[in-house]
This record gives sequence, C-alpha cells and structure tokens, in this order.
Amino acid sequence: MSNGQTSLVEEVRDRFGPKAAITDPADVEPWLTDWRGRFHGKAAAILSPSSTDEVSQIVKLAGERCVPLVPQGGNTSMVGGATPPADGSALILSLRRMNRLRSISSEHNVAIAEAGMILADLHDQATAVGRRFPLTLGARGSCTIGGLVSTNAGGTQVLRFGTMRSLVAGLEAVLPDGSIHSGLSGLKKDNRGYNLDQLLIGAEGTLGIVTAAALKLVPAVYARSVGWAGVRDPKAALALLRDFEAKTDRIEGFELVPGDSLQLVLNHIPGTRPPLEGAHPWNVLIEATSATANSDPVELLQSLLAGAIEAKLVEDAMVASSEAQAEALWRIRDSISEAERAEGPSTAHDISVAVADMPGFLLEAKREVERAFPGTTASAFGHLGDGNLHFHVRAGSRAAPGWNESEGHEIERFIDDLVTRAGGSISAEHGIGQMKRGELERLAAPGDLAALRAIKHALDPMGLMNPEKLVG
Amino acid sequence: MSNGQTSLVEEVRDRFGPKAAITDPADVEPWLTDWRGRFHGKAAAILSPSSTDEVSQIVKLAGERCVPLVPQGGNTSMVGGATPPADGSALILSLRRMNRLRSISSEHNVAIAEAGMILADLHDQATAVGRRFPLTLGARGSCTIGGLVSTNAGGTQVLRFGTMRSLVAGLEAVLPDGSIHSGLSGLKKDNRGYNLDQLLIGAEGTLGIVTAAALKLVPAVYARSVGWAGVRDPKAALALLRDFEAKTDRIEGFELVPGDSLQLVLNHIPGTRPPLEGAHPWNVLIEATSATANSDPVELLQSLLAGAIEAKLVEDAMVASSEAQAEALWRIRDSISEAERAEGPSTAHDISVAVADMPGFLLEAKREVERAFPGTTASAFGHLGDGNLHFHVRAGSRAAPGWNESEGHEIERFIDDLVTRAGGSISAEHGIGQMKRGELERLAAPGDLAALRAIKHALDPMGLMNPEKLVG
Repeated sequence: MSNGQTSLVEEVRDRFGPKAAITDPADVEPWLTDWRGRFHGKAAAILSPSSTDEVSQIVKLAGERCVPLVPQGGNTSMVGGATPPADGSALILSLRRMNRLRSISSEHNVAIAEAGMILADLHDQATAVGRRFPLTLGARGSCTIGGLVSTNAGGTQVLRFGTMRSLVAGLEAVLPDGSIHSGLSGLKKDNRGYNLDQLLIGAEGTLGIVTAAALKLVPAVYARSVGWAGVRDPKAALALLRDFEAKTDRIEGFELVPGDSLQLVLNHIPGTRPPLEGAHPWNVLIEATSATANSDPVELLQSLLAGAIEAKLVEDAMVASSEAQAEALWRIRDSISEAERAEGPSTAHDISVAVADMPGFLLEAKREVERAFPGTTASAFGHLGDGNLHFHVRAGSRAAPGWNESEGHEIERFIDDLVTRAGGSISAEHGIGQMKRGELERLAAPGDLAALRAIKHALDPMGLMNPEKLVG
Repeated sequence: MSNGQTSLVEEVRDRFGPKAAITDPADVEPWLTDWRGRFHGKAAAILSPSSTDEVSQIVKLAGERCVPLVPQGGNTSMVGGATPPADGSALILSLRRMNRLRSISSEHNVAIAEAGMILADLHDQATAVGRRFPLTLGARGSCTIGGLVSTNAGGTQVLRFGTMRSLVAGLEAVLPDGSIHSGLSGLKKDNRGYNLDQLLIGAEGTLGIVTAAALKLVPAVYARSVGWAGVRDPKAALALLRDFEAKTDRIEGFELVPGDSLQLVLNHIPGTRPPLEGAHPWNVLIEATSATANSDPVELLQSLLAGAIEAKLVEDAMVASSEAQAEALWRIRDSISEAERAEGPSTAHDISVAVADMPGFLLEAKREVERAFPGTTASAFGHLGDGNLHFHVRAGSRAAPGWNESEGHEIERFIDDLVTRAGGSISAEHGIGQMKRGELERLAAPGDLAALRAIKHALDPMGLMNPEKLVG
C-alpha cells in the first residue's frame, strides 16, 4: 500500500469501523478479476461504506490523498469496467453493504433502491407489492442497481420498457468532489439546466458514484404467451414486428433466430425439438403479456399470427399451448451460444444499428466477414426490435490455438469498422470499460471524443473516479 | 459592431450569400425582445445559415473572432432564453432557414426534422402519414424543434408521452468547437460513454447548437373523449388518476381545476357554463383517446367514472357527448389565466414537486403564501399527473402600481424556497434562461451548481454559446 492508501484505510476504519475497510488478501482477491476471468487487477483494500454519507466522506478523504477509487457492485461487467488497474494504484469501493430498499410504492409505481441492492431482490420486492421492475438479464442474481444504472443496462425486455435510462426516475450520487447529488424525489418535469442524472447513467462510475436510484415500476404480468414463426428473411421479420406494434402494445419479446442457429441447437442441445414442421430460413420467437384478466395474450398472439400468415408475412407459426411449451421455445433461443460453442471457437460482438437498418446490415455484415475471413461462419440472433443483435463469428476451418486472441481481435476491429460506417454503435449494451477504450478512441467522432474527455476532466480533474475506464 | 463582428458578418456573407447575414436594423429589431416583452437585448446582426455545415463554419469563425452567438428558433422563450445580452456583444444565430423535414417514416415511427422547423408543421407532416408527434403547447405555431429540444419542452400531453427528452431518438448538433455531433441514426441501444444527446437536451444552447432531431412518432388519435369530475380535494384527484392508470393506459389529459378557479371562469368568460349541477371544492378534466376503431374512449371514460363514483373517489361526473361539448370543457381549463387577469395583477410560477407530494404541497403552499402576504389569493391548476402545477398568486387587496416588479419578486423567492424545501424544481418546464439564473444560483445544491459550471466551462471555455444564460 502507498502511504496515501494506508492513511485512507486507517481513517476509514477509525470513522466507520472495521467492516468499512477489508484488507485481508483472501477477502480482496475474488474481486480483483472480472467474472469472465479476462481482466486481472490489483488492489490492497476494499472500502465498503454503509451509507451515502460514508461514501461522501470516503470520496473526500481519497481526494485529499490522491487515491483513485474503483466502484464495484456485483462485479459482472462484460468489459472489465469494475476491475482495478494492474499497478495497484487504486482501491476498490464496494457498494454491497448499501443494499437496502429505501421505499416502494405500488400506488405511485416507484421504488427507491440503494446501489448495492441485487436486481433479483428488487424483482422480488416489486412482486411482493403486486408490481414489476421490468429490466432483467442473465446476471440478475449478482448484478446490482448501481452497476445497472452506471452501465445503462439493457437485457431482454428493452423492446417494451427501454434500457435503464428509461426506468430511472431520479438518482442520488456522490460527485468527485464528495458532494451529494440528491435527485431521488423523481420529478417528472424539471428543467434546471444540464441533467446530471442522465449524465451519470452510463458513465461507468467515471464521473461519480451512484448511491441510490428511484426506479419506475410497471404492472405485474398476469399472463404471457410465447409463439414461434418461420419467415423468409430478416426484412420480413421486421415487417412482422411493425405489423404487431401497429396493432398492440403487448409485445415484450421479439427475438430473431437464423435457421442454421436453430439447427445447431437441435444438433447439440439434448431434449430440444423443432417448433415447426418444416425448416425456415429465419425464425422469430415472440412473447406477449397481459397485466389483467381482461385480455388473453394467447388469443392475441394467435390472432396476430393468423393475420400475418394471411398477409404472407409469415410462412408458418405456432403458439405455445402450455407454460412448459413456452419455456421450451425460450430454451431454444437461450441455448444458441452454448450450441455454437460445440462447433469450436467463436467471437461475440455487442453492436447495434438503427432498427430500420438492421435487416440489411446483418446480411451484409455476414457476407463481408465471411469474405474477408474465408472459412468462418457469421450468425446474428437476438433483439431485432432494439437494433441490437448478438453477432457471432465462428472460426470454423480457421480455428487454431490462440485464435480468439489473434484473428479474433482482427475480426472485432473489422466488425467495429462495419458498424461505425453504418452509423451504429460498437457498444450496444455492455459499455466501454477497459476492453473497448482503444476502439472508442479509434472510431468515435473526434469532436464527440473531445467532448467526452472535457466532461471527464472537468468533473474529475484528478482522475480518481474509476481510473483507466471509458475515457479516463 | 466590433471589429470581430464586422469581420464575421463579412466572412459569412462571402461564404454563404447575403441571406446568411441580416444587418438591416428593421429586420433585426423584432428578434431583440422576447415575445412577452420583458427582456430587451441588442445585436448588430442575425446570422442565418441554411445547413448544418454552415452552422459548423459559423461557429468556428465566431470562435476565431471571439464573437458570442445567441441561438434562436421561434423566440418564444418564457425566461428570456433567446434574447441577446443588452451590451450588443453577441450576434443572433437564427435557425429558421433550416426548417426542412429531412425524412419521415410511418413504418418506423420516426421523423427527422431540422432545428428551425415549426412544431405545427411537424404535426401536419406526421398527420399526413397517419401518425402523430404527441408533444404540443400553446406556442406551436411559432416555436421550433431546436428550441423545444434545447429547453426540454413539456406542454399538455406529458402525462402519457413524457417531455421532449422522451421523444428524442437522436440529435445532430454543432459543438462549441464547431465539430458536428451526428446522432440522427437514433440507436435504441448505445453505450459508448456519456450521452451527449441527453446533455444537449435542456442545455438551452449553452453547450452547442442543435441543428436537427430524430423524433419519435406515435399512432394518430382515432377518437377522443373528455370528461369532468367533481372531487373533494387534490388527494382524491390523485387517487382517481392512479385508479385510472391501473385500469388503462389511454389517459392523455388529467387537469386539476380548483372550485374557485372554475367560478372565476364562469364569472368572467362569456359563454362558459358549469359542467356539473352542483359546485365542488375541486374538479378534474380528463381526456382519454384511442388509436383504433376497436376501443371507444367515451365508453371507457364512462365506465371508469361510474366505477369511481361507486368507490366514492368522485362526487359527481359527466362525459362530453359531442366534440363541441368536449371543446367547451377544455375552454374552461384554458380560460383560467384569462379569468384571473380580470381580477387584477397576479404572479405565475412554473414549479414542480414529486407527483405523490403534489396534493399536500399545493394546499400547504397556498396556506403559507396567503399567510405571509395577507390579502393575496393563491391558486393551483394544471397537470397533476406530472407534478407540475400552474401556481398563481393574485395581488387582491395588495394590488398597487408596480406590484409585479416589487412584491411579485418577493413572492417568487418565497415560493422558490417552499418548492426547494419540498425537493421540487423552481423550473418545471420553462428552463432557466436569464430570468431564473439568480434563483438557480441561490437555491441549487452547491455541488450540483459546481458540476453544471464545470461542464459549461469544459465544453465552451470561451463562453461563446448563448452567453448570460443558465450558468453562463
């Protein structure tokens, strides 16, 4: 530990007790590596405050001692966003002791959760009052509200309810100077200048530390219905989505599945069966929900799909007749990555373009990648309605030891170039963290990048907030 | 004109022709005063580019010559936000030649409009393709898209569709260094660091100049229904709104009208008639719409109100049986300010608190104001569901020449203190401009204010973007 770190740890212990500063290497160790094991950092201590006031004091004390802080929630970043620098210059600031639900109102549809609260716990608390917090994702059992806010998390329900940005009614945060920004009253109309809440959402902890969020709740799901349709191409899939959206606002899931990805799942995942009799070049999984007993989502989906078959938007379709069948359809979708792994190494890309451009882009990107890297196979599946697809490239005949670290990076840059030329984003939902800093620097519009850096430098002139991430 | 201004005007004329720089005092004069006639500025010229590239060049040329620029759309600011400084140091940059609709898609529900496009024109264009741009307000015939974005405008349909912030899918803007920020592809998922679009929304032109916006469209209104209900107090009104929201998402208007405001309208506005037989302490006007022929908003509202009467949430209620009757109900709501003017001078306050706090706050604020300024009468009406009420204080027995400019300002500070203590906003929808700069400085949390200033200074170090506004 540097002198500054030692003095900071001692002062934190003096003020807030032994729980507020963890220095036993065995307790610190698990939090030095990201959950996928790709990023490894070093930190002599984890500071673990139990209140916003303690966070504020720690940020001030760290500022006086020039000690950088790496905020950490569930440590589930996909881009190394919560892993400390390798040189041990920073300490971890864990929010996990701040895990209370401060309030929840089913009348006003709002919950105030502290940064360290785990997403699954918020789901349970919302359910207990007859409501739902609609954002969900794979890491829900570990990821925390502060991390979800700071990365503007997306997940599987974005189509209807948007990303975290749409679900935040207001934030409480400690700014880099230690001052507390209090926005939890959740004003629907507030035009007092630049919106700090919106600036902190997606800032990955580089402009301050989110300590609590007022979050919007929606009605609980009363019933759901899941269907499967075969379509001729992605353009037809998007036309189908637009047709449904014009007729109802109950569609919550709309997942595109290429015919060959379905075949891979059927080949490799035991117990999966084809949803339709014949094979189709492309498929979509559709989920509709209802919040009341008045409307039946099964009937809704059946009637929508019948109309679509008549309009020749769809080649064939079915609607699950039981919850078990519904789950079997989702299992196909959720097993694609696993099935692809059975075919050898592959790269995965978290990219987005405008929804309208998606059908054209994904066909063209597949063509270009497979032409530039003969022997590879590109496939795209996932959230068509968000313009965000999981774009995977399998090594195929090019597979070799270390392929991911060598040609894999080349493919990444190739795809980032394609998506940038198409006006899209090199990070649809995972953020920049440390993994994509180089690509952001390489591909962002120079004026935008200069603005990002100016904002970072203005609010955190000493560079102590989550160093070496995003533009820090 | 200073030497820098003269050189800038000449260079702009050379590059972009005579239309791009207006110097005839008769043509400049009308744009030097805000539309309410409260703020008067001085400027030797109006620069009027016809493209984003021209805006970019002008911003660079102005930067080289240190000439501040005041962006102007329809000049309908309520807070002097588009009026140049009184010393003539700045030139006006008018966006009104950039008034094209670049594209509109009914399939993807998005329109790309240039900053100078007038809101009413966008309404017409959306209607022409069977869609609707849902934000609307009194100045719709003059105000422009750029101004609406830069002030995060609200208006009367915020309850269902949110403020401008919710309706922007992406922005194009010229940053203070002259670089062009291009965000019009309107990505639904994009996590490449701090969100510049969100920072520019509501920045009042102090961080750059919005040149175009990608805007979300919603289905056109097929039918509407307007009802009127008498309730015992604001708490019952909010309970009624929550009851309706739990049962339908078709409520677009929910306006609170105090019994004495209704009486003032009936007294002063010819041709108005009481909607219900008896008098009620408080009233609400409710509007429901439907986008399809499948659902009848009249039936919906009748059934909702019948249930509310049974649940004793409502004392009495009616639903308009014709469009003429619906308009008569809205006319009552829209005539309140006019009726109040007939009672002598009054002050008006654009404030908000959390929706849940609104019923308590408005009764308490009325009590406190009337106690501190005996003889005045405070009344609150407007958008209960947004936490945003028009709070008016009539001078009553205290009326005297110059009352607005003397005691009126004292009352403003008094109410700003009340709303700040309640965790609310001193500017719900009009922004800060020059009118509320002092109050923002006096009442903002010091840390927040420091952050706002740091951002302003970082992005516009020379202070050339809309000087003397917000925190400039």
